[in-house]
Amino acid sequence: MSQRYFLQLSYKGTHYHGWQIQPNAVSVQEVMEKALSTILREEIAVVGAGRTDTGVHASCFVLHFDSKNRAIAEGDLVFKLNRFLPPDIAVIGIKKAPGDFHARFSAISRTYHYYISTQKNPFQTETSYQYTVPLDVPKMNEAAKLLFEYTDFTSFSRLHTDVKTNYCKICKAEWSREEDQLVFTICADRFLRNMVRAVVGTLLEVGRGKLSVEGFREIIEKKDRGAAGASAPARGLFLSHIGYPKEMEIQ
Amino acid sequence: MSQRYFLQLSYKGTHYHGWQIQPNAVSVQEVMEKALSTILREEIAVVGAGRTDTGVHASCFVLHFDSKNRAIAEGDLVFKLNRFLPPDIAVIGIKKAPGDFHARFSAISRTYHYYISTQKNPFQTETSYQYTVPLDVPKMNEAAKLLFEYTDFTSFSRLHTDVKTNYCKICKAEWSREEDQLVFTICADRFLRNMVRAVVGTLLEVGRGKLSVEGFREIIEKKDRGAAGASAPARGLFLSHIGYPKEMEIQ
Repeated sequence: MSQRYFLQLSYKGTHYHGWQIQPNAVSVQEVMEKALSTILREEIAVVGAGRTDTGVHASCFVLHFDSKNRAIAEGDLVFKLNRFLPPDIAVIGIKKAPGDFHARFSAISRTYHYYISTQKNPFQTETSYQYTVPLDVPKMNEAAKLLFEYTDFTSFSRLHTDVKTNYCKICKAEWSREEDQLVFTICADRFLRNMVRAVVGTLLEVGRGKLSVEGFREIIEKKDRGAAGASAPARGLFLSHIGYPKEMEIQ
Repeated sequence: MSQRYFLQLSYKGTHYHGWQIQPNAVSVQEVMEKALSTILREEIAVVGAGRTDTGVHASCFVLHFDSKNRAIAEGDLVFKLNRFLPPDIAVIGIKKAPGDFHARFSAISRTYHYYISTQKNPFQTETSYQYTVPLDVPKMNEAAKLLFEYTDFTSFSRLHTDVKTNYCKICKAEWSREEDQLVFTICADRFLRNMVRAVVGTLLEVGRGKLSVEGFREIIEKKDRGAAGASAPARGLFLSHIGYPKEMEIQ
């Protein structure tokens, strides 16, 4: 009999082709499977809570895996994994879970943060989007509020993906200031591919006055990807929380 | 007649051989002189408030330069410099100064911060020292307080430097916690070469129980560099403030 485990990790996505395993490119999933398989001395497959694109970071990602190894001490495994893994991936915690808990299908919400440096900042070149054009933040928040009125976000999705519906329920969408950074927090039950970066890129057009709040509404209603603004760069985006039903939370 | 300017900048030291110009290695000073000379179309030499070693960062460094260019608009020059400079150097501000103000000789204090990540952190690999051994912070602060009782820090200086005295007046030396980071703040009228990293490395030995507080005092009193602990790595060190008499402050 194998035991299921939930594992929380953080990673800097700069040098990875996203979370998901793919041929001829290094992914975080591949690195995690190799680390777990080596340390536990058995073939380990991991299932992630979602996927992140090339260059996107995660301050708290969740995966699950099953192991037949009966001698796992969670604290010890965290320590060994952190020594084995490269400096840009860190394990935060590991917890036993019932076999029907699923990192992806049991998740009920995802939260992303998008960081914009409004002044040149030598320390955030890989973890924020340096955007020094003046922005009308109240207007960007006014437009962001419109996201709550809709559930079909075709306009902000990548074309030709294999998902069945483009429906998402937004539970938070707000810009705030943290020192010389502007941070967009967005939470939903699910996201379409590329959606957060397309929403951020389009809200930046509102912020710099190239698009009105009503224009933003029209883009949503068009349900046409070509209508939205350019996607904001991957380096500013962090997947920061995966929500689960209370009984499944790791910490 | 030339006009003197004070300029505040920040830089990530990872890819530089320190502040000071030297043969066959890229320094921040060299990059700044090239940027100013190109934009102002005259040969500009800059004088820094001090020097930082290879890999050490600055969140706020100060330099001065003289220019014959009569058409300098400070805000415009900041903008142009930030576009010209690489992403890891940023100009914060520029201000006219009387010809007898000197970035180095007029400075009355320097403040450094040393950052230690007490948990593995994928986002701070170049800007903190990852040190996950448990540390007795109150004991490190007890030892740090002893620094106020002395002015000769030969034990923490690099051998064979050309300074005339090893005297420094410490005005702050304290460890504090910021989320999962431990931060050492130290302020003095001047510092010897390598001094902050040698102090931090030796205080870490106190923190992990390899050296007592009294042992730390004995090291200071020995006035012998060989007695102190290993220097902490450059990547955790930030020069964060240069103090000037009130009338000279830039902001």
